[in-house]
Amino acid sequence: MVAVQGLGFVGAAVAAALASARDSEGRPRWFVIGVDLPSEAGLAKIARVNAGEPPFTSPDADLGRLTHEGACEVGNLVATDAPAAYGLADIVVVDVHLDVHDRTDTNAHSIDVGADAFERAIRAVASFIRPDALVLVETTVPIGTTEKIVIPAIRDEFRQRGLDAEPRVAHCYERVMPGPRYVESIRRFWRVFSATSPEASAGARAFLSSFVDTEAFPLREVGSSNASELAKVLENSYRAANIAFIHEWTLLAEQIGVNLWEVVDAIRLRQGTHDNMRYPGLGVGGYCLTKDSLLAQWSARELFGLSHELSVTLRALEINFAMPLHTVARLEEALGDLGGKRVAVLGVAYIADVGDARNTPTEILYDALVERGAEVVLHDPALESWEERPDADLRDDLTATLTGAEAIVLAVPHTMYRNGIVETLATMPAAVVVDSQNLLDDPAAARLITLGWRVLGIGKGHWRALGYGGER
Amino acid sequence: MVAVQGLGFVGAAVAAALASARDSEGRPRWFVIGVDLPSEAGLAKIARVNAGEPPFTSPDADLGRLTHEGACEVGNLVATDAPAAYGLADIVVVDVHLDVHDRTDTNAHSIDVGADAFERAIRAVASFIRPDALVLVETTVPIGTTEKIVIPAIRDEFRQRGLDAEPRVAHCYERVMPGPRYVESIRRFWRVFSATSPEASAGARAFLSSFVDTEAFPLREVGSSNASELAKVLENSYRAANIAFIHEWTLLAEQIGVNLWEVVDAIRLRQGTHDNMRYPGLGVGGYCLTKDSLLAQWSARELFGLSHELSVTLRALEINFAMPLHTVARLEEALGDLGGKRVAVLGVAYIADVGDARNTPTEILYDALVERGAEVVLHDPALESWEERPDADLRDDLTATLTGAEAIVLAVPHTMYRNGIVETLATMPAAVVVDSQNLLDDPAAARLITLGWRVLGIGKGHWRALGYGGER
Repeated sequence: MVAVQGLGFVGAAVAAALASARDSEGRPRWFVIGVDLPSEAGLAKIARVNAGEPPFTSPDADLGRLTHEGACEVGNLVATDAPAAYGLADIVVVDVHLDVHDRTDTNAHSIDVGADAFERAIRAVASFIRPDALVLVETTVPIGTTEKIVIPAIRDEFRQRGLDAEPRVAHCYERVMPGPRYVESIRRFWRVFSATSPEASAGARAFLSSFVDTEAFPLREVGSSNASELAKVLENSYRAANIAFIHEWTLLAEQIGVNLWEVVDAIRLRQGTHDNMRYPGLGVGGYCLTKDSLLAQWSARELFGLSHELSVTLRALEINFAMPLHTVARLEEALGDLGGKRVAVLGVAYIADVGDARNTPTEILYDALVERGAEVVLHDPALESWEERPDADLRDDLTATLTGAEAIVLAVPHTMYRNGIVETLATMPAAVVVDSQNLLDDPAAARLITLGWRVLGIGKGHWRALGYGGER
Repeated sequence: MVAVQGLGFVGAAVAAALASARDSEGRPRWFVIGVDLPSEAGLAKIARVNAGEPPFTSPDADLGRLTHEGACEVGNLVATDAPAAYGLADIVVVDVHLDVHDRTDTNAHSIDVGADAFERAIRAVASFIRPDALVLVETTVPIGTTEKIVIPAIRDEFRQRGLDAEPRVAHCYERVMPGPRYVESIRRFWRVFSATSPEASAGARAFLSSFVDTEAFPLREVGSSNASELAKVLENSYRAANIAFIHEWTLLAEQIGVNLWEVVDAIRLRQGTHDNMRYPGLGVGGYCLTKDSLLAQWSARELFGLSHELSVTLRALEINFAMPLHTVARLEEALGDLGGKRVAVLGVAYIADVGDARNTPTEILYDALVERGAEVVLHDPALESWEERPDADLRDDLTATLTGAEAIVLAVPHTMYRNGIVETLATMPAAVVVDSQNLLDDPAAARLITLGWRVLGIGKGHWRALGYGGER
């Protein structure tokens, strides 16, 4: 029996993946209990899982299928708000959040992390679990959390329960990837883990092998919980830093007439050393790349008492948070003062074709446009509503969004836009378009120009050089 | 007939590769004339090529074989100091240097580049070439060089010669890689190029296809010379920035007891996004990664008149130049004041198994140790002498180098050291060893500890945590 703590984007998918695991004779390997809080949001998630529906929408049909199968057909998946459920489990998988309070505060000395809430979640588990149960933390945590927070908290709860046992704890960070292969990203991907005892190591290895395809993606155990915790925040910091790196080259390319998209394409042919170079764009969003570096820096200061600053890493976050303002600057280059101007923004989600707007760069773009007095209308085929900006004018109809706009920002490379947004634009009165996602190729841009449009592109310096408009 | 200007590390290898190219009937495609200056160094290179020997040592036997074949067997490779040779050529390949005067000056406003010498080299070509000859620049140049320096210089020379022709110029940066597959890195690797006219484009494509395996590695033409020039300095800046990024994580890992080598190994399993993450190390060297970012910044200021600063990129260079000082700090952590202490440094070359010490991080290490009053002895199986530090005590015999040393730095992962340096160390009196290249695994470190050694490792925080010595 396995309990999954937290039915958010990770926990709900892990619970479904676990419920779908089968032994060599085709029998379910696990009875899975999903546990969330008795809050309004928590109870809603619990109700959805028990009804056989994932608690959030996903383009991956497998997620819905497996949740329904577990909850309604096989009957080995159930959700509850009762923490006593942890006491039934052989293994508790921790998938609760550990968030940063203000992500845009990248000052090494004032980063503020929700470690207290995380510790409370661990204590909730520890106050019910069997002393020999394995606690497997999948949450992305500050380095040192297992050693300095999780284990002391469990020990303390055990002590209060009169138990003498040594906690069995492993850390195996999740690498789920929102999108059409969501469940695959759990079952078929490399996993790195650490364990605090030989028993915990053996338990974690057996458990992970029961639902991850470890033949194709062998597990990698590292020497300490500090190491596996560091690995997660390092790998996401690397990605964020590589995005920040390309931004100053984007600005240079635009000023000297170079198409940086074409240049990056050419460089990426060098496989193994350069094929992950990032492209220009609107900015960086999502739950992880906007915060994991902050967890590392907080850890250095608060958990290890170090003065060490991850200065390149934090600078990268600052650059990424400011990146959407460059698209604003390109708009101002074309329109001048944006006050009272109607601007249509196509794309709110932080990634193409996924209904997830957490920390989306469109939010920074939107706020900056509103601050400048622009009248902003938005469209996104992947989102029904925009939780973080409920007052924003998000529309369902693309033409209605575009009608009357003096400028249009192509913000997200949704397939709907990728498949011929130029056809739609060409039917509208000529305006300004800023393409931040390489959705318009050169012929498309030329066609719009001949229709009277002004066409600007992030990283598309050659458009400026070719006189494709934009300058006033 | 093709002339290659400059018989350095690139030009001599390109000349040999060209001389070895055969048409479909097995006949040599090119008669190749290598041209260098009538300086002492230039004449020495010319004499060596004419004697059938490459002008520098290389672990790639093909380089010597092909040079000999062209110069002494087939007879289609000859070297000269007579610039009139350019007048015989259908194609002139420019492989002269364009260097930065002080690489450690990373201030965006004072970077100083040898563009004048480069322009003189171009004028030497232009004063002799046929007006329809193709000038193909392989030199890594500041962005804008083709447009703002090369073409105006050739036009001016043509004008002085009473010629009305438009210069035929292409830029196709080299990507040669020192090591055992040197010639392969010319013949079998992706090439990016640009041309300033359709004729130059067709000529460059045909020429490159005559000696590069463009079936396996298709050519990629980009839209402007600015684009191909930017591509080269961008791709090397990316590499340098990725090395700098990992350094601050190295320092963190050491302070919190994590083995960063193991962590990076685990992360690199994520192919396509994370498999090029760099490891900890001594520092960065070589001809390219230590200067190409400076060319880009110089270009922005001097050739385009921009105030734009590539600040992340330049900061990365600064970090890389300072990186060897961290190994010095680890030495001081173990030995205290280094004054009068004998330190043996194993490895001078900037890369394993290659006799190339240009801008090697060992130079920065060496200078810092000498400045602190240490008595430094060095060893390198790939180098007979150290041109940049002729007074340094570079020895042939490993044991003689180690004898009497109070500390040993493992600086370069030469195969000779990789194959059991621990065996050699174990025969010597116990001392301090700082492993900057992961040459000692955990059992090797433990063995040395039991013999009384103190063992420190760059990025090996777990050695500190395990009490493997090092602290005073």
